[in-house]
Formats: sequence, C-alpha cells, structure tokens
Amino acid sequence: MKLYVIKIGGNVIDNSENLHKFLKDFAALKGLKILVHGGGKMATQISSSLGIEAKLVDGRRITDIETLRVVTMVYAGLINKNMVAQLQRYHNNAIGLTGADGNFIRAKKRPVKTIDYGFVGDLDGQSVQPESISKLLDASFTPVFCALTHDGDGQMLNTNADTIASALAVSLAEMYETTLIYCFEKKGVLQDIDDEDSLITEINPERYEQLKLEKIVSEGMLPKLDNAFDAIKSGVKEVIIGRADELHLLNTKSTFGTILKSN
Amino acid sequence: MKLYVIKIGGNVIDNSENLHKFLKDFAALKGLKILVHGGGKMATQISSSLGIEAKLVDGRRITDIETLRVVTMVYAGLINKNMVAQLQRYHNNAIGLTGADGNFIRAKKRPVKTIDYGFVGDLDGQSVQPESISKLLDASFTPVFCALTHDGDGQMLNTNADTIASALAVSLAEMYETTLIYCFEKKGVLQDIDDEDSLITEINPERYEQLKLEKIVSEGMLPKLDNAFDAIKSGVKEVIIGRADELHLLNTKSTFGTILKSN
Repeated sequence: MKLYVIKIGGNVIDNSENLHKFLKDFAALKGLKILVHGGGKMATQISSSLGIEAKLVDGRRITDIETLRVVTMVYAGLINKNMVAQLQRYHNNAIGLTGADGNFIRAKKRPVKTIDYGFVGDLDGQSVQPESISKLLDASFTPVFCALTHDGDGQMLNTNADTIASALAVSLAEMYETTLIYCFEKKGVLQDIDDEDSLITEINPERYEQLKLEKIVSEGMLPKLDNAFDAIKSGVKEVIIGRADELHLLNTKSTFGTILKSN
Repeated sequence: MKLYVIKIGGNVIDNSENLHKFLKDFAALKGLKILVHGGGKMATQISSSLGIEAKLVDGRRITDIETLRVVTMVYAGLINKNMVAQLQRYHNNAIGLTGADGNFIRAKKRPVKTIDYGFVGDLDGQSVQPESISKLLDASFTPVFCALTHDGDGQMLNTNADTIASALAVSLAEMYETTLIYCFEKKGVLQDIDDEDSLITEINPERYEQLKLEKIVSEGMLPKLDNAFDAIKSGVKEVIIGRADELHLLNTKSTFGTILKSN
C-alpha cells in the first residue's frame, strides 16, 4: 500500500493563509499519509514574551530546560492541536503526536562533545516503531507529528523535523510503498536558483553526481539531497521536494516539484 | 471487559512528587484505562508571565482567545506530553489527546445567555465517539485526555475535565464495564468533613437521599455526587471518589475511597 510522509516547515506554518490552504490540500490527498511539522517563529516569539533568551553556543541553538518547556507547549500544544482541529474540519481524521505518544519515536539525548546542545534528541535505525504507527494508519487515523521525541526514561527531547520525517519514511518503508515529501519555499531543485522556471523535475543518483560536479546544486540544498538519497537507499521509494501549494497536484498527476528516485 | 476512566485534578498535577507517584500507580493498574487531567495552576502562572490577565465576569472565569491559546499550550502540550513521557517510562503505552484528535470528543461552544464564557465547550450525549476510542484501547494504547475539545469546525474549546471524564465513562459504558474514578484531595465522602477516618465506603441512591436529608453531604460535594449518580443511571457500573495516592489499592482489593453504585 502507498504511504505519503509529508514534512512542512516554518514558511508554511508562519503564514496562516498558506497553512490553511496546505491543510485543506493535505486533507484532500488520497491514500495513507503522515504529516510532520516544524515549529516556525511562534516558539521564538513566545520565548521572548516569557523573557527566555535564545541560547546560542558557537552560533548553534541550544535547547535548555526553559526552551524545552516552551517548544513542548508551542509545538505539541498550540501548533499541533490547532492543525489537528483544522484537519478535522476538512474531514481528515488526524491525531496529533510527539514521539513520546505510543512510544512511536524514541531518541537518544545528543552526547556532549565540544557543544552541549541540551535537550536535543538524535535518531537511529531503531528509533521508530513502524508496527505501532501502522496500528493508527490501519484504524484510519492520520498521524500528525511535531518535532519532539522522548528518551523512554521520561524526558522529552527537541528533534529536527526533517530528521523525524526521514526516519518515519525509512522505517515505514518496510511495510508501505513510501513517498517522502519535503515542502519548502521553492518549486523544487532549480537549475538556476533565481529562476523558478528552471525546475529539474527528476534526479537519479547518477544525475545527482553530475549536478554536484557542475556545481548546479546550491550549498544549502546539498544536505537535503544527501539525506533524500540516503532515505532512498534505505528503502523509501521516492522523495519529492517542492512547494506546499503544489501538493494538490499529487491527486491528478501523482507528482510535483523535483522527484528523486533510485533510477 | 472492564474499563477505568480516571480523572485527576490540580491537587495532583501541581505537586510533582504526587504526580509522579500517581503516574507510576496508574501505569501499574491492570486492565484497560483512560486518564483525564485538568490543568492545575500552571496555566494561570504562564498566563500571568505572558501578561494575560484572568478574565472574570460575575466571578465566572472567561476563556477569551488569549486564554485559549495558553490553555492549549499548557494542557495539551506541557502537562499532557510530560505525563505521557512519564507513563512511557513506566511502560504504559500512553497517547496524549485532546477531543480534536481522532474527533474523539466534539463539543458545542457554550451559547451566550447572560454571560459570554468565550471558547468553552459543552458536551451532550452525542459528543464522544466510543467506537473510535475503542480502536486505541484495542491496539493497547492508553488514551490520556486533557481538558480540551473541538467544535468540528476548526475551533478548539476549553472543557471541564470532570465533564469530559463523565461523558467518556457514560459513552464507553455501551462497550465496556466502566468504572469512573474521581481522584481528589480527601479520602472520599466523609461523614464528618474534618475527620478523614469518617469515610463512607459505599453509597447507593437510597443512602444518598438519606445523607442529603441529614445534611451530611457538604455543599461542595453535592454537584459531584449528583453527576456521579447521573453517570450510573446512564450505564456506568460504579463511580469511585477517593485520593489519588490510594489508586494502587484497586490492584488488590478492587476498590478504595467511596464507591457509588446503583444498589
């Protein structure tokens, strides 16, 4: 059976008009699906209203205990539950989750090397419980994950939403024909970063090596694409990178943006 | 099959030692179970840190849009997810929920008569979807509900936790042999409110009428007991009112506190 794992980030969440359009399109998308969302700017705004300063060490963001409290409130409470209520309005039977719920995603607190990142969780091949998640899918629920996991010992952990989406897709690829979709602000991978009409519609590993040699892939896209091809190597059928407002195209032509495939 | 619906309030939530003991006992409780929790003082504290003043009209608390945002963060995020993480630690496969998740509890925004209570939801006999909730129970998940519902049209609503617990118990009584448990600060219904040794261990409707005539039931207990007997009339097998730290007694002697029964 087909399964979509779809990740949206701050650019969708921070604009309520974009978010509503996206949730309506997501609800209308046929087939099994999982949504993963990041946090957007709201956590930063609420932290600052609460007088909690962003902690940075060597330019890297640190999740101290105060910040963890705020992201638990904002990601798992405010953002997640309002999304769920909207999806219900559009007749999609969503359930809002963190990795702690159902023990679906268990992480390890990032070990302290040169930087102590605080309450940040890293995932490995054993983190996701696909059989447990499939019980929700089988019962016609749509899991909506925010960017939080737990350590199994009572501690919530802040975890990158891209990483969660990719770990879910790889793990569930054992049971479903899985497409991982990263929604971002551009149409997809562009030949010319300033020209939205220069979309590359399809990339396989061979073409990717070429694009890297020709320096067509921008620095910022490299880690995204490396991760995408790692997911494909680990069993994910395809990865799509494209704009959230083109997601609806999946219902008619079964793809949009740039599609990454193993061949 | 037996099902416990257990409600805890602020007196348990606000004391982290009490809360931990309770969650450990709840995790160890044998059989199917659902937890419903109120908010405690944390929402008030965070509101006040955010500069949001409590709105009161004629002494009644109003849930304006700002307050709704805070309770969505605090109830569904901070309190609910930390409880879930603790329950997972004690090997109870909890899933943290609002009524919006899975469309489990749909409420109606309270109509404005003399007072506009704001974003407050009232429940009726059609609010709870027992078949949907039983899918989670069948899959060995433990639902943990906070005091929030939705209107089905995208709006979250603040809803009394006692009412949610009672509506869940009544509705699930169609499918399970349901015991509703209200944990509160006293040992149960007391003959003498100042004497914890004067516990009345069992009350049936006849005895209840007597107790009311003799003015033994205190003013504060009346609505609780009226609601409890309503639940019993609607199919709930029994209602227990007792202390959270005596919940563990259920595993050995199958009751504690005051037990209310139909006969």
